[in-house]
Amino acid sequence: MVCFTADLGQGDEVEEARVKALNTGAVAAYALDLREEFVRDYVFPMFRSSALYEGYYLLGTSIARPLIAKKMVEIAQKEGAVAVSHGATGKGNDQVRFEMTAYALKPDIVTVAPWRDWEFQGRADLEAFAREHGIPVPTTKKDPWSTDANMLHISYEGGVLEDPWAEPPAHMFKLTVSPEEAPNEAEYVEVEFLNGDPVAIDGEKLSPAALLTKANEIGGRHGIGRIDLVENRFVGMKSRGVYETPGGTLLYHARRAVESLTLDREVLHQRDALGPKYAELVYNGFWFAPEREALQVYIDHVAQSVTGTARLKLYKGNCTVVGRKAPQSLYDKDLVSFEAGGDYNQHDAGAFIKLNALRMRVQARVAAKAEASREVESV
Amino acid sequence: MVCFTADLGQGDEVEEARVKALNTGAVAAYALDLREEFVRDYVFPMFRSSALYEGYYLLGTSIARPLIAKKMVEIAQKEGAVAVSHGATGKGNDQVRFEMTAYALKPDIVTVAPWRDWEFQGRADLEAFAREHGIPVPTTKKDPWSTDANMLHISYEGGVLEDPWAEPPAHMFKLTVSPEEAPNEAEYVEVEFLNGDPVAIDGEKLSPAALLTKANEIGGRHGIGRIDLVENRFVGMKSRGVYETPGGTLLYHARRAVESLTLDREVLHQRDALGPKYAELVYNGFWFAPEREALQVYIDHVAQSVTGTARLKLYKGNCTVVGRKAPQSLYDKDLVSFEAGGDYNQHDAGAFIKLNALRMRVQARVAAKAEASREVESV
Amino acid sequence: MVCFTADLGQGDEVEEARVKALNTGAVAAYALDLREEFVRDYVFPMFRSSALYEGYYLLGTSIARPLIAKKMVEIAQKEGAVAVSHGATGKGNDQVRFEMTAYALKPDIVTVAPWRDWEFQGRADLEAFAREHGIPVPTTKKDPWSTDANMLHISYEGGVLEDPWAEPPAHMFKLTVSPEEAPNEAEYVEVEFLNGDPVAIDGEKLSPAALLTKANEIGGRHGIGRIDLVENRFVGMKSRGVYETPGGTLLYHARRAVESLTLDREVLHQRDALGPKYAELVYNGFWFAPEREALQVYIDHVAQSVTGTARLKLYKGNCTVVGRKAPQSLYDKDLVSFEAGGDYNQHDAGAFIKLNALRMRVQARVAAKAEASREVESV
Amino acid sequence: MVCFTADLGQGDEVEEARVKALNTGAVAAYALDLREEFVRDYVFPMFRSSALYEGYYLLGTSIARPLIAKKMVEIAQKEGAVAVSHGATGKGNDQVRFEMTAYALKPDIVTVAPWRDWEFQGRADLEAFAREHGIPVPTTKKDPWSTDANMLHISYEGGVLEDPWAEPPAHMFKLTVSPEEAPNEAEYVEVEFLNGDPVAIDGEKLSPAALLTKANEIGGRHGIGRIDLVENRFVGMKSRGVYETPGGTLLYHARRAVESLTLDREVLHQRDALGPKYAELVYNGFWFAPEREALQVYIDHVAQSVTGTARLKLYKGNCTVVGRKAPQSLYDKDLVSFEAGGDYNQHDAGAFIKLNALRMRVQARVAAKAEASREVESV
Repeated sequence: MVCFTADLGQGDEVEEARVKALNTGAVAAYALDLREEFVRDYVFPMFRSSALYEGYYLLGTSIARPLIAKKMVEIAQKEGAVAVSHGATGKGNDQVRFEMTAYALKPDIVTVAPWRDWEFQGRADLEAFAREHGIPVPTTKKDPWSTDANMLHISYEGGVLEDPWAEPPAHMFKLTVSPEEAPNEAEYVEVEFLNGDPVAIDGEKLSPAALLTKANEIGGRHGIGRIDLVENRFVGMKSRGVYETPGGTLLYHARRAVESLTLDREVLHQRDALGPKYAELVYNGFWFAPEREALQVYIDHVAQSVTGTARLKLYKGNCTVVGRKAPQSLYDKDLVSFEAGGDYNQHDAGAFIKLNALRMRVQARVAAKAEASREVESV
Repeated sequence: MVCFTADLGQGDEVEEARVKALNTGAVAAYALDLREEFVRDYVFPMFRSSALYEGYYLLGTSIARPLIAKKMVEIAQKEGAVAVSHGATGKGNDQVRFEMTAYALKPDIVTVAPWRDWEFQGRADLEAFAREHGIPVPTTKKDPWSTDANMLHISYEGGVLEDPWAEPPAHMFKLTVSPEEAPNEAEYVEVEFLNGDPVAIDGEKLSPAALLTKANEIGGRHGIGRIDLVENRFVGMKSRGVYETPGGTLLYHARRAVESLTLDREVLHQRDALGPKYAELVYNGFWFAPEREALQVYIDHVAQSVTGTARLKLYKGNCTVVGRKAPQSLYDKDLVSFEAGGDYNQHDAGAFIKLNALRMRVQARVAAKAEASREVESV
Repeated sequence: MVCFTADLGQGDEVEEARVKALNTGAVAAYALDLREEFVRDYVFPMFRSSALYEGYYLLGTSIARPLIAKKMVEIAQKEGAVAVSHGATGKGNDQVRFEMTAYALKPDIVTVAPWRDWEFQGRADLEAFAREHGIPVPTTKKDPWSTDANMLHISYEGGVLEDPWAEPPAHMFKLTVSPEEAPNEAEYVEVEFLNGDPVAIDGEKLSPAALLTKANEIGGRHGIGRIDLVENRFVGMKSRGVYETPGGTLLYHARRAVESLTLDREVLHQRDALGPKYAELVYNGFWFAPEREALQVYIDHVAQSVTGTARLKLYKGNCTVVGRKAPQSLYDKDLVSFEAGGDYNQHDAGAFIKLNALRMRVQARVAAKAEASREVESV
Repeated sequence: MVCFTADLGQGDEVEEARVKALNTGAVAAYALDLREEFVRDYVFPMFRSSALYEGYYLLGTSIARPLIAKKMVEIAQKEGAVAVSHGATGKGNDQVRFEMTAYALKPDIVTVAPWRDWEFQGRADLEAFAREHGIPVPTTKKDPWSTDANMLHISYEGGVLEDPWAEPPAHMFKLTVSPEEAPNEAEYVEVEFLNGDPVAIDGEKLSPAALLTKANEIGGRHGIGRIDLVENRFVGMKSRGVYETPGGTLLYHARRAVESLTLDREVLHQRDALGPKYAELVYNGFWFAPEREALQVYIDHVAQSVTGTARLKLYKGNCTVVGRKAPQSLYDKDLVSFEAGGDYNQHDAGAFIKLNALRMRVQARVAAKAEASREVESV
């Protein structure tokens, strides 16, 4: 048995897992620091889509799984392993995301999912099995919910959250203070984008992982980015998830602000119509599928022109865009001014409307004529 | 000349406009209370789509124009008028929305847009014309921006807002307090939906207009629903708009929460992919176009099952869903529980994944084989 | 054991199946004539979409499965059966279509698919099992391919067709003559539609099933509607299918011709963009899924205005539209004439173009300015 | 005045136009051979989409306009012209395509469209003007329709074709024989694609223009590619167009055949859902618009894997795919065979179906429970 733990910024548990693996019989245990790769090659490309899953979810868990599975497959190949295994349950999305990636990258891989495929009847069985085989199980009282953490977010589900009418416990959150506890003074922050990706906060150039870390700190201290959602899993059921994504939320609004100056109208509308599909593919575990890759090519092309700066006001849970600028802004104050002049002849507008309305006028005339002839007939 | 003013809840100016019309030569002046019709037949049907224009805008001005134009055409027909006229500029969306509606409903109508079609060179010329013809012009110092108000929102644009980097002035807003000024205590509110529309707030059944009014009061006192946006106009330029939509924002999140329990996954994803197009049609003034009507039929069908209650926490600008319930909820706690049991056999999941991955495995095998044969060739 | 055979117009084998069932131990054997229901409630609603699967396939097998499965479930309920069974293989789409329908209509149903779930290793095993259990197996030499027949089409797959480079054998086809054998004289046929469905051929009003039968005869004798396709199955592999759908092909082109006069441009384009999704849902077996039903509501609304007549020329495999007319045609000869006049002022067109081009002009100016400043910098 | 004629393979009229220009006062007259550029950079990229306008039209005229306008703008810049002019009417699509391209490439261009913008009342006025100014007008009796010809197609519209119920005259067609006149012997042809574009016919490598020329000859002699359509113009009216596109039709079916082996299912379905939008953009004249360019990036990426050969049978108007092969075909005979084995475990299929059906089972259960409780209430 070879063990692999991915360091995606979730904290102490990475090293703990490595040690535990060696103590319980692993012949080798990998703990790879994937933080930069995670943000640069997974989070940021996904963010270029400005897509949300089911209107809200920033896909913090979904986007981590393909990278973890990719590394797992690479280690399996290096170590000559015949199979890969993961600890996801048989009811969630993660099993799909792990195994789909594994199959796509190494089609002859064997996957083992003990919690799903073996004869456990829930968590109690699992813990009994662990004790029986000398695998240490944390004795501290467990939180009455399940979490997944990485640099982009922490998710919470299960336990007390399974009642979708119940408010999440206040003490559950870790990355953000509550809006109530956030400072009474607003903070302004400027995020700079270059060719589609954020590159600086308040003028400080940062690597992808450093930038996301800083965005988390800033957003977190102002209570930004908590989301409470009932969502649809790929395996067919609805589940309730609560998320905190402080930096991701901040970057989402900053990006949309810069996009609003730099993206063409029709490009923006078309891309946003593809957003639900793109988000669905990421959520369902199809990161390495050809249809996600094809959409990514489109999204990356569109994102190329997203260069500029957004100014955000953060205050007690609110993340409000209050300014945006771009060196190649398509916003033209002269065009939009109430005064005449600029490169737009407003006398053209009446004609523009008439041609746009032509098909509706024809239809209305045809309908009126049909109506009239029906009335004649009925006389 | 016959004058028509639509009362959509914008306040005193309705009656002022009627009186001013009669004083300046109108042979008749209509001021119609359209508040219930506006919310019931325009705002609520649009809300059923859960669509936003360009990610944020709740379409408060856009949705009012078709109703105003429809009534204008009806009055024109009743009064035997040969033409209709409006005061929109030649650079904005409203001219399109008014005239498109007029043409669609009465294809032989003549439209007159003095500000666009006559020889005014901006606002100063217009005011000179008014003084010359004895039309009273407000002598109070004008706000350095332009607004449009109705029950759903107030919009602000132009003047000091034309610099997209400049933060909107704090004293501009009317429907909402700022998050800073909002109460220090959170308020919880429950919104009940029946077959797609909100029908009660905190247990009180309300007519559409009364419900929106109450939602505005609640949202407004907690600073909910301010949006600052650079958006794309249908006539081709980008413009900066600032909006406050307190009740609409509250209802938007409440609806999505009830939808999350009651809409099927695939239906939700499909509908959301059509959202940008639907919002574009409303924004561009195509309310009475057959393509908007066809999408509405779809949206109305989907909305039929949206029955349930959302619980929201309002606090200093935040409008957070904290609970949702529905008599026919598709959420099934037993399915999602970490424990085994319920109507789901998790042993099925591995097979489900394998079939989903099949096409990717085939592709990976074919690619590997091609790679191998290229390597052989290059030896 | 209760046996059920659906008569969808496939011919003698219906009664044969019923008798065989009783001879081999069935306590009851149903053979229901579903021809009118099939065409009226399944084929025609699907045709309203004008959708094709993967550009060509008219979904002749796909659309029959939900009806068969629905009846099977109804009989199971009536007879108190605890499970339903079908003879589809474990590699195709039909198992999905049958079982998906059964689960959707009766969620507690048990499904049995012997060919898939039992221990047969292919067709030879299956025939051995049949002989062993006294189930008569046709002794006539089998065709080296597999077929499925109903009123809408016959499909051919497997055997000699598994090589996608090999041309289908000429003697395989049953519903159509080859173009070579078709008459040397063209035949003209007129198809009349009323509110979205075909109702008459050459002036003769016919029931749905009678109309499709007649369309098959006419199309079949002129060699219309043979298709040879490699298609993508829902279970993940590509397969080769050959189809003959004479009447369906004829009705497809006739419908599109009437649509071309009666559907609004934007409605047509929007509906056609949804076509691949709709066809995918039908193909994959999601007929009774809420997302198909929601799209159907949209499609049915759009189809309401499809009333008119198409004139087709049939000649040796060609089915060419040569004329179309409609009582409420949106085609207006005066608008389109090269001569001036009609309800269209061509002076409006220049302005229409200018506003449509505005965003591109702005973008070109911005790009040129950026280019110029880069050149200055590099000096 | 400088004159420019584009040689897109339409024949003698190119040189005639050049001479006529010089005779009537042009200071310079360009006649550029754009055939290779046309096919390589416009026709083939468009074909990569496998998109049709409104189900049928291969966009033969639409795709030529951007290239002509681009060259016109380049010549205008070179010659220092302040304006460009074209001879399109004020009712059609071509004025839009020419001027949209001109504005996109040179935003300060002035466009002049005499037939639209001057005071002509139709064709008679125009001919009078020409005679008055010594511009020769052909004295041969004109065809009672209008045509546009290039290497990809000939279009026919106007005149006797304005009645959409009237069959086009048999002697009108030029690129194709009628199916009746085509040979009594079928011909087989093989078309080879490499990375998305056709590169050889029957084993002969050909340049883009030479390949399309050969495809036209082959298709034309078998009567392939006549289309008769009522279509929707961008300026708002419906018009009737008849087209002959022999080579384009042949290449369309050949491409789809190779795609069927080489494109992933989900990629194919997604791309085809974007087809109507892409075709609309090309038809409407938005070739140089950023939204077309963004879609092209996607389409080009998808097309990269389209490498293989299609075998077609041509016979009296029929163009039927009878075989396809590809070096990296995703079709796997072992997977699809009725016999067991291969990389697919059919026991997985039942589980796959169950998880796909889960959301429908839940919904059916919820609906049944609601029904039951309604029945209880009504007792």
